Amino acid sequence: MMDDRRNLSVINHPSSVINSKNQQEMHTFKELQQIIEKEIEKLNYDLEPKRLYEPIKYILSIGGKRLRPVFVLMANNLYSDNIKKALPAAIALETFHNFTLLHDDIMDNSPMRRNHPTVHTKWNTNVAILSGDAMSIKAYEHIAMLKPEYIKPVLDVFTKTALGVCEGQQYDMDFETQEKVGVNDYLKMIELKTSVLIAASFKIGAILGDAPKKDINLLYDFGKNIGMAFQLQDDYLDVYGDPSVFGKSIGLDILCNKKTFLLISALELAKDKTLTTLKNLIHNKNFIAEEKIRSVTQIYNQLNVKELAEKKMNEYFKKAYIKLDQLSIRKEKSLGIIAVIEKLKTRIN
Amino acid sequence: MMDDRRNLSVINHPSSVINSKNQQEMHTFKELQQIIEKEIEKLNYDLEPKRLYEPIKYILSIGGKRLRPVFVLMANNLYSDNIKKALPAAIALETFHNFTLLHDDIMDNSPMRRNHPTVHTKWNTNVAILSGDAMSIKAYEHIAMLKPEYIKPVLDVFTKTALGVCEGQQYDMDFETQEKVGVNDYLKMIELKTSVLIAASFKIGAILGDAPKKDINLLYDFGKNIGMAFQLQDDYLDVYGDPSVFGKSIGLDILCNKKTFLLISALELAKDKTLTTLKNLIHNKNFIAEEKIRSVTQIYNQLNVKELAEKKMNEYFKKAYIKLDQLSIRKEKSLGIIAVIEKLKTRIN
Repeated sequence: MMDDRRNLSVINHPSSVINSKNQQEMHTFKELQQIIEKEIEKLNYDLEPKRLYEPIKYILSIGGKRLRPVFVLMANNLYSDNIKKALPAAIALETFHNFTLLHDDIMDNSPMRRNHPTVHTKWNTNVAILSGDAMSIKAYEHIAMLKPEYIKPVLDVFTKTALGVCEGQQYDMDFETQEKVGVNDYLKMIELKTSVLIAASFKIGAILGDAPKKDINLLYDFGKNIGMAFQLQDDYLDVYGDPSVFGKSIGLDILCNKKTFLLISALELAKDKTLTTLKNLIHNKNFIAEEKIRSVTQIYNQLNVKELAEKKMNEYFKKAYIKLDQLSIRKEKSLGIIAVIEKLKTRIN
Repeated sequence: MMDDRRNLSVINHPSSVINSKNQQEMHTFKELQQIIEKEIEKLNYDLEPKRLYEPIKYILSIGGKRLRPVFVLMANNLYSDNIKKALPAAIALETFHNFTLLHDDIMDNSPMRRNHPTVHTKWNTNVAILSGDAMSIKAYEHIAMLKPEYIKPVLDVFTKTALGVCEGQQYDMDFETQEKVGVNDYLKMIELKTSVLIAASFKIGAILGDAPKKDINLLYDFGKNIGMAFQLQDDYLDVYGDPSVFGKSIGLDILCNKKTFLLISALELAKDKTLTTLKNLIHNKNFIAEEKIRSVTQIYNQLNVKELAEKKMNEYFKKAYIKLDQLSIRKEKSLGIIAVIEKLKTRIN
């Protein structure tokens, strides 16, 4: 609570901000999360018609880590003390992200999201379609609240990214019925579905902080690589995570034959009897959950898919950190970002 | 064809445009339609993933009158010879309108649109949801192509309007299960679902033509009233239209108990036995189509609902023309717009 009040006073009273570039106040991840939470609470969705706006309020209220808006503010804070200026863009990104979850949940027929019923389950599909549509428009409304000179550049990044996210979701759906999906197809899909929005968050934060063009692009690449690493980690943790830390039960992806980095790599590497066994495990509709998880994991282990995923993740983290290292900012600041990423490595959603 | 080539040359070579305000070249409705068609044909939707972009190309290619983009150009042309400048906004409006049709057709479970299978019928619901989402983003991409100084004002109008359209669709869906809907509720619903987008088309065209603020607002009100009149006319023509002119079979709204201006007014006006008969006609699930249409129409006639609708329509047209009369432009120009509206009165979709 104390922390919370402290950083809100900074946000609400820009005059209290230390303006010297050298003594710039860096907000912690937690502070930024709290700023975002407060800002989301302030949004007014108690509007008519209720069935349009209540689902928006609902999905925005059931949490999540607020990574994207925090990344906007984090990147912005590298170049600016007045992160308040970047808040509309941060809220736009979070609104857009939640809109995609809302519609993805319809398409994936998911009953639950963050331990709560999904909107199409709690209301119905039509409500979920339409309130999602309104959320997407709301995201643009927030962008339009930026200072006019930033609207065009942010709009360009945002729109390109938003289309990328749709493309990624379409590839993901295409993969479900596609017999052969290669590792590179998969990496391209997650780049679009997940990474570009993380990348755009950092980029937009930097744009709004008047960062040098070189830094803006470096932060985009940083975010893209971090996004790739996090998505691979998500695939990895489904099989190798500790449920008490990870928060989800283990093996869900295996049970529904989700084409993750692990499964796709295993299908590429497996030969002869192992390949036949793996394919049988995938196609067999009568199975005992624990047995299927154990058998598939055994094949993953046998093929060193675990190590392959770790290697790939680390490659992306390394690439990301190289980008960070090339920024024009003081090293302590990038160390701050690295500390956040290292902490997030333990868990992300 | 000749017309087409002529006006395209005007569009592509602004230098050929007569620049004197007094000798401003006014494009005809048909010319503007052709300009829009050519512009839509130029859009590149031959992109990957195909299942995301093909439905967008499809719905944009199956026609419609292109009213909204034409209205953008018409309003723009009142103040500017270089309507090319307004084209991105015109395309944004048409893209957004078609996006709403695409999603509305899912929600209304409509198999056909403009004599073609709807996207969710031709592909599937998930494809229709996602390609709709991408279309909505594409609309914003077009807005971002405007000259930077126009982006913020257009974005503000567009976003407010787009949310209004969602609100209208939600009210429309709410009405389906709502026992009592008053005429005023209905008018509010169609204002949001239909009229504000027509109003925004005129307003945005005027903004992009650097029209005086007073004219911008007058054209918004003009469009709003025209939109109301056209929607009432649509309700009216379902019952009283000539199928050979109207292009749709008569009585569809009656058959599916659609809460139109006619039905809502009839339910408000009917008493005693007539009210009972009308309610029975609505609730009875076993009926012969022709008989139901004839019986409901008889009640409408008996209650003078036809005349009521005509009166209401004319009120809106009158209000619209009063707004037009107050514009700062030369009278010939507003006469041009009136001629178009009078012609459209015979049929609109």
